[in-house]
Amino acid sequence: MPVAAGTRLLALRRTLPPTMMSDQRPLYPVDAWRIRELTFDPAYAARNETIFSLGNGHLGLRGNLDEEPGNVAHGTYVNGFFEEAPIEYGEVAYGYAKNHQVLLNVADGKRIQLTVGDDPFDLATGTVEAYERSLDLRTGLLTRSVRWRAPHGAVVEVVSRRLVSLTLPSIAAIDFVATLVEGTAPLRIVSAINTRVRNQEVSEDPRVGAHLPEDSLRTIHREASGTWGAVVQRTRTTRLALIAAADHDVSGNEPGRAGARTSSIATQDGVALTVESDAPHGARLGVTKYLAYCTSLDHQEEALEARAKEAIREARTLGFDGLVEEQRAELASFWSVSDVEIEGDRALQQGVRFNLFSLFQSAGRDGRTSLAAKGLTGEGYEGHYFWDTEIFALPFFVYTQPSIARALLRYRCGTLDKARARAAEMTQRGALYPWRTIGGDEASAYFPAGTAQYHINADIAHAIGIYVSATGDRSLLHDGGAEVIFETARLWADLGDFIPAQDGAFCLNEVTGPDEYSALVNNNCYTNLMARAHLHLAARLAGELAADAPAEYQRLATRIGLTAGEVADWRRAGDGMRVPRDPGLGIHAQDDSFLSLARWDFAGTPASMYPLLLHYHPLVIYRHQVLKQPDVVLAQVLLGTQFSMAEKKRNFDYYDPLTTGDSSLSPCIQSVAAAELGYADLAYSYFMRTARMDLDDVNGNVSHGVHAAAMAGSWVSLVYGFGGLRDDDGRLSFAPRLPSAWRRLRFRLQVGDALLQVTLTGRAATYELLAGNVVEIRHFGQPLRISAGQPAVQDLEPRLECVIFDLDGVITDTAEHHFRAWQRLASEISLPFDRELNERLKGVSRMESLEIILENAGRTENLQDKVRLAERKNAYFRELIAGVTPADLLPGIGDLLAGLRARGTKTAIASMSHNVWDVVRGLGIEPLIDVIVDPATLVKGKPDPEIFLAAAERLGVRFENCVGIEDARAGVEAIKAARMVAVGVGRDLPGADWVVTNTRSITVEALDALFTAPRPMAGRGAAR
Amino acid sequence: MPVAAGTRLLALRRTLPPTMMSDQRPLYPVDAWRIRELTFDPAYAARNETIFSLGNGHLGLRGNLDEEPGNVAHGTYVNGFFEEAPIEYGEVAYGYAKNHQVLLNVADGKRIQLTVGDDPFDLATGTVEAYERSLDLRTGLLTRSVRWRAPHGAVVEVVSRRLVSLTLPSIAAIDFVATLVEGTAPLRIVSAINTRVRNQEVSEDPRVGAHLPEDSLRTIHREASGTWGAVVQRTRTTRLALIAAADHDVSGNEPGRAGARTSSIATQDGVALTVESDAPHGARLGVTKYLAYCTSLDHQEEALEARAKEAIREARTLGFDGLVEEQRAELASFWSVSDVEIEGDRALQQGVRFNLFSLFQSAGRDGRTSLAAKGLTGEGYEGHYFWDTEIFALPFFVYTQPSIARALLRYRCGTLDKARARAAEMTQRGALYPWRTIGGDEASAYFPAGTAQYHINADIAHAIGIYVSATGDRSLLHDGGAEVIFETARLWADLGDFIPAQDGAFCLNEVTGPDEYSALVNNNCYTNLMARAHLHLAARLAGELAADAPAEYQRLATRIGLTAGEVADWRRAGDGMRVPRDPGLGIHAQDDSFLSLARWDFAGTPASMYPLLLHYHPLVIYRHQVLKQPDVVLAQVLLGTQFSMAEKKRNFDYYDPLTTGDSSLSPCIQSVAAAELGYADLAYSYFMRTARMDLDDVNGNVSHGVHAAAMAGSWVSLVYGFGGLRDDDGRLSFAPRLPSAWRRLRFRLQVGDALLQVTLTGRAATYELLAGNVVEIRHFGQPLRISAGQPAVQDLEPRLECVIFDLDGVITDTAEHHFRAWQRLASEISLPFDRELNERLKGVSRMESLEIILENAGRTENLQDKVRLAERKNAYFRELIAGVTPADLLPGIGDLLAGLRARGTKTAIASMSHNVWDVVRGLGIEPLIDVIVDPATLVKGKPDPEIFLAAAERLGVRFENCVGIEDARAGVEAIKAARMVAVGVGRDLPGADWVVTNTRSITVEALDALFTAPRPMAGRGAAR
Repeated sequence: MPVAAGTRLLALRRTLPPTMMSDQRPLYPVDAWRIRELTFDPAYAARNETIFSLGNGHLGLRGNLDEEPGNVAHGTYVNGFFEEAPIEYGEVAYGYAKNHQVLLNVADGKRIQLTVGDDPFDLATGTVEAYERSLDLRTGLLTRSVRWRAPHGAVVEVVSRRLVSLTLPSIAAIDFVATLVEGTAPLRIVSAINTRVRNQEVSEDPRVGAHLPEDSLRTIHREASGTWGAVVQRTRTTRLALIAAADHDVSGNEPGRAGARTSSIATQDGVALTVESDAPHGARLGVTKYLAYCTSLDHQEEALEARAKEAIREARTLGFDGLVEEQRAELASFWSVSDVEIEGDRALQQGVRFNLFSLFQSAGRDGRTSLAAKGLTGEGYEGHYFWDTEIFALPFFVYTQPSIARALLRYRCGTLDKARARAAEMTQRGALYPWRTIGGDEASAYFPAGTAQYHINADIAHAIGIYVSATGDRSLLHDGGAEVIFETARLWADLGDFIPAQDGAFCLNEVTGPDEYSALVNNNCYTNLMARAHLHLAARLAGELAADAPAEYQRLATRIGLTAGEVADWRRAGDGMRVPRDPGLGIHAQDDSFLSLARWDFAGTPASMYPLLLHYHPLVIYRHQVLKQPDVVLAQVLLGTQFSMAEKKRNFDYYDPLTTGDSSLSPCIQSVAAAELGYADLAYSYFMRTARMDLDDVNGNVSHGVHAAAMAGSWVSLVYGFGGLRDDDGRLSFAPRLPSAWRRLRFRLQVGDALLQVTLTGRAATYELLAGNVVEIRHFGQPLRISAGQPAVQDLEPRLECVIFDLDGVITDTAEHHFRAWQRLASEISLPFDRELNERLKGVSRMESLEIILENAGRTENLQDKVRLAERKNAYFRELIAGVTPADLLPGIGDLLAGLRARGTKTAIASMSHNVWDVVRGLGIEPLIDVIVDPATLVKGKPDPEIFLAAAERLGVRFENCVGIEDARAGVEAIKAARMVAVGVGRDLPGADWVVTNTRSITVEALDALFTAPRPMAGRGAAR
Repeated sequence: MPVAAGTRLLALRRTLPPTMMSDQRPLYPVDAWRIRELTFDPAYAARNETIFSLGNGHLGLRGNLDEEPGNVAHGTYVNGFFEEAPIEYGEVAYGYAKNHQVLLNVADGKRIQLTVGDDPFDLATGTVEAYERSLDLRTGLLTRSVRWRAPHGAVVEVVSRRLVSLTLPSIAAIDFVATLVEGTAPLRIVSAINTRVRNQEVSEDPRVGAHLPEDSLRTIHREASGTWGAVVQRTRTTRLALIAAADHDVSGNEPGRAGARTSSIATQDGVALTVESDAPHGARLGVTKYLAYCTSLDHQEEALEARAKEAIREARTLGFDGLVEEQRAELASFWSVSDVEIEGDRALQQGVRFNLFSLFQSAGRDGRTSLAAKGLTGEGYEGHYFWDTEIFALPFFVYTQPSIARALLRYRCGTLDKARARAAEMTQRGALYPWRTIGGDEASAYFPAGTAQYHINADIAHAIGIYVSATGDRSLLHDGGAEVIFETARLWADLGDFIPAQDGAFCLNEVTGPDEYSALVNNNCYTNLMARAHLHLAARLAGELAADAPAEYQRLATRIGLTAGEVADWRRAGDGMRVPRDPGLGIHAQDDSFLSLARWDFAGTPASMYPLLLHYHPLVIYRHQVLKQPDVVLAQVLLGTQFSMAEKKRNFDYYDPLTTGDSSLSPCIQSVAAAELGYADLAYSYFMRTARMDLDDVNGNVSHGVHAAAMAGSWVSLVYGFGGLRDDDGRLSFAPRLPSAWRRLRFRLQVGDALLQVTLTGRAATYELLAGNVVEIRHFGQPLRISAGQPAVQDLEPRLECVIFDLDGVITDTAEHHFRAWQRLASEISLPFDRELNERLKGVSRMESLEIILENAGRTENLQDKVRLAERKNAYFRELIAGVTPADLLPGIGDLLAGLRARGTKTAIASMSHNVWDVVRGLGIEPLIDVIVDPATLVKGKPDPEIFLAAAERLGVRFENCVGIEDARAGVEAIKAARMVAVGVGRDLPGADWVVTNTRSITVEALDALFTAPRPMAGRGAAR
């Protein structure tokens, strides 16, 4: 398929941002475990603030410099600590979301300003003589070492170490030491908690900026005393309170002398501690700052100060080095399960580790908060939670940090009442989760790409399903999970209708799917498939709970008014769900009308016009076939068992060239889908975009915060894509395909109590248990039982596993019978027909053959007459084949079949003929054929690869390990499109890997050699 | 069709507002030419402010009281004088409309405060002893007479007269006289121009309130001197300036005495003149106030004061009585053409006159302004212009005040550049007019029901087309009209695409039609039909101009880059335009997906939940089949020649019950469509809603301003509805149907130079020329040439004009042949069949008959086999009928046909049989039959009325004048659904007007008597 492949490559090139096209060096040196900045360049300051962020799921500090100068956007965030402000609409309507919600940029405790003599520490002045900033992914420590010559000549070395504790949620700590290494000058350190920060304002880009009035966050209390300082802040509308407190240890190298003088002060700007030392040469002055952030979300407002003091006391008892030790231990535990090792590309290795580290830093652990689109690293998307958490991030946590996964899902359980209220406001039953939110209320100001994305309900249910299935932890179901699944399923049953004009199918109309370049459509395929799975899950779960925990189930059912009739309705709605398809193209339709739109003019769209949403009115975008998110492709990744390989291939081939690169969520899904289909280069390219999206600032907006979902997507690409993990039918299966550039890929999955390690090389996949007793998986469809101490090694090198035969002209010469039958019909109705025309009928269905003959004669017939003619030809043909015997086998085929059977190689027949069974019986080879694909089950005939892919699927073999044998061009094309090895019988069969003129040449050994030896040249029919 | 009719009535009842359901008395006494208020009730103050508004298309004054107390919302508007303010979006996107536009409430010159002693004139105090306010539609004068006893006992009579000059656009005048009729007290009159007014603020109801900052309109100059006073105001963003000036004549009854003292002052509140008199008993004190409003839209800002002075000088020279005289003359001229006389319902007469008067007051005449949705009477919809002007109001002006129509269309020509810029912003070619605007820029803050309503382009082109065709004034085309039509056509060609998946049809996707309860759909039927007409109009016009004015055309073409190829593209796009239809229902589909939505649950929607838009989220509304505007029905009213009567009927029957009463624009269109279809009661009910919509405050929001489009709609209902005017194929045609409650309806139409008067009674339509020489029209399809002095009187009483025969069982007994043919087939394939089953086949198509027989036997067959079986039956049948001769005519039918031919009565055969011609030839009656309807041309068979309506249309006769003769139930049902007289042959034919058992009873005389005598009882087959 050179054309299609070309299209895809073009598509990919189009969507790659300019930075990736150029040979720009990465900003951070490649390093397996560290992100390092070796020179200070203000041009990258905003970007570095994001990259060097630290967090623990509760508290997030942007990677600002300690000193005042040189920062772009200070950021200090407490997960879930937000303010609301009314949404202004130019034209309002009933039921619109009422309030913006904004994650607040709170009092900034990071500030530490050194002054050397009269010179404030400011890298824009004086001379930087040495510089390094480093984020260590194994210790979680952000370290900066600077040797700086102040304008007045003194030289200091500054070493600052910062961490946000992964074990003490409210604690951050900074150890700051300045050493005078040249000259003499008094040193002064001012350590502050600064309240003069606020959220970024709204900009032209709709993706950043907050709609908040000035006084959204007021500082109501300031206190400074000794080394202690604290500020209390309160929000205006949400009535939340927060304390930011600090205590300090001061150190110097001459404790015997008068030592450092300290003083503290509270002002309008916050609180500050000043430490001064009349330092001679070699003097060292340092502070260790212990910061605590506690909020009224966790504590009584009156107790905030006490809680902060307690937390700081605990931290101070450990000391900075103690905190570092705990941090290192915590991260060691994290990496022991969550690390993914890539051998063969250190830059990717670094990118992936950075991504996983960032996810670990940003995800809420308290069951009250979730994972914001930008983590806790910036203010993009106002700090909102989206479906990103459930669909993109959850798999990583489910399989490597299940307790965090549970906490993230508990957040949804905790906001169920708000989802119920929203459904009621929308005059619907059940619960409708908000498209974007922090506190649980819908905060999307644009309903066509907000509330209309009802699929959020199914996304959440799907995530709960995956969690329970992978962890075996059913307690979540009893802890709100089941109620969430039921109430959200309820909405589907109420939202949809059985529509007579759609053959009575259950339809979900006027929705928006994940693809935000379409809006307000009927029967979005992703939504309907996910809703169907959701309804079935809910019905199944109701049955299970009623059986397993009848009393509890009854209490829940009574409380939410759930009856057996309603559960039956869910099943009925799910069973009747409309799944839009296009029979002509053989693909799933993105929605009822998508395929009736004009295709976007990609050729006429310059790169500068991407992302489209910033350059075209929504009406223009919505009117075209163009995608922000490839949502049919996403559905086939999430619900892989509901698509045949042929469907997946056709869907991907159709939708991928329509996908812009305008969403950071897309490439990981494109990578997974491409990997499954054997589009190795494409899978790798898409993975490249997602793996280092933030480190390389692929989208140019890292300064607004990391792309948390894309980070998780890089894990998804590795594990679901190259690892080929699938989990949508309650069992783990793998179909690994390692990129050829890599030597090894290794990851670990927590599956219930077991820890499964998967190691992939180009030659083999090794499954072994690092913990637990036994795990059952499938490897390319074959069940495997992995037991403790018994690694399972599976060969991945291509080998002859299956041979798929065309019938006519390969196994027997029914081609001649067909020719004679057509000839008889043609002469009877006075149509020209000869062997040349007959060549065009090879591998083509009966009806299509008739069309070719009619078209060749310039004749048209109505459908009824065509059916009659085709039947007549078939009758003639059947007369001819009634006399077929084993003697009609083509030369060598009988031996070949017997040899394959003896070797244990599988066999199939892939013929478009409807008379295969009769012929096979006549030939006497029925016992030697494992599968005959029924052409009636196919959506598309050759040259579509469907029939070959179906044979391989039925036999459970990898397409790489199949040989197809064909005598027709369309057949060879189909085999190659199925990514199999093609053997051609005859002449002029371009694309075949090996062409023979006589079937006798095809021996078991020759076929085997196609895998072990260098491939014989295609064409020319050279005998071996 | 009793069921359908019941549904419609229910629908109507549902949508009638509570006020109409109750027997509430009208607020204003019924009076042919006046609107009078006889008691002062503060509860109605806001409503009266709208009703008693005065205007002249340039200046509008709400009907506020002269005195300060008792007013709700002061309003003074200058057409086109507006301010902009940025639209705030919760989430903004590329290409969104940038600014709100708001018609400004400017300095208020109406204020005149009387004080009697220490008592300010305030009807809430003291005692009102007599009261009347009256708006005289013939003089345009608003007069108020009050006799008021002040709290301190003195009694004054106050007479205030107000007008806004229809001849001097910038002038308004108030004559205010107070006479002391009891007691003694000093009188004081303060006449002011008050600048402390501003627009109403935004409210919960999205339809009212302006988004304007405080200082949008600043008063930059105030001046008071002698009896003169003026203020100058300037807008902040649009940089427009306005002067409001007044001069006064003071009068008293004792001019000999010291007389009234006058003083003037300028303050922050504006300017004021005080007139005082130490009045003894009987004293009279009066001021005549001449007000002028001039703006920088018409004059240099420096010249504003001079212009105001000049205008006032001119008015003062005429004096108040002179102004009254001019006003009366101007209105006499207006009414001489524009009046519509209704005899038989004085309340409706009053309502309609009030409506026409209001339209005349509100429509801009300067070519720079248009007609706002609320006229110049209130602030609803921010004073915006919509499509209302072109589609609803234009016909009234085109046919009665063509110079105003021209000015309204010139407004669109003048804003073409802004429409071009908008198209460019939307990345489209040509011009895209704004959905709502004042200054010409898009001001809709909700694009799904704003910019997406692309049909505005076609609406404007349609209006220009109607104007040129009716007036013959082609100068408008040269004066910008042609350029508008071309540039707007261009947009369609660029917006649409030939879509392969839609059989290559030209599709307009992602649009919103007039029905705002659907949004962002593909191929909205109204839009596509109007765009098709637009493209064809543009192509035709280009050809005409190129032929008629080649040089000028070439200049225009060069300027806008128009080529012959592009014009050909327009034609191709128009020809290929997709018109969505549902073949099963036989209706036009509102859009591609409308019929695949669930129907709204009307039964479950209480009256309090209307209008739906205030109680349901748009997603809920959009998801259902429910209409705000019946836009398919609107299309069939505007483009009547593109629909068959049967289509119109089926469309109306389908869509009318889905139409809520939530738009004030709907009832007039529903009335016109119902009238055409003979749904007399329904037409009348819908007209009732529109005729007195504002006088009766049907929608409860008159206080926000009048409903200008609905007012024009009442004229449309009368002239297009009951008058049956159609004008969409360049010729006037009439199909009048007078409501039975009325004695007479008379209206006049300006057609080129001619003035055509149409007078309708129950018995006749009279067409006569009041001016001009000759006009060619059609009356129920028949061409009529109306010449000066020669009125044409057309009989309207039902009379026998046409007889439409079923064939089988009416003309001949092929029914028996059919029976035998079916019997033969049935026995051959072993299906039960008898005469009872045969009865069910009468009047039913061959294929449907087969279905019935199969279904009866519980058998199913595939399509191919069914076709074969039906053909077999037909072959048997044809064998049987091959031997038909004249002897096979049923008794009396030969004589009947001959008699009808002799009488000049038309005849048709309406049979679903495909063998009619063979039978008719065999019977030898071919020369006696005028029309045989080919069943192959039909969308729906009997009992749908299509075949009967098609026969009547082909013959150009009114359905009321047709008799249908049938022997089958389905046939009788079809005749009655076609609103014809039904004669049944046989037994048990419910619904037939006359049933005979023997065809011999059907004579010419008997049929004639069906129209002249009281109808014979239906049923029982009673011979006459």
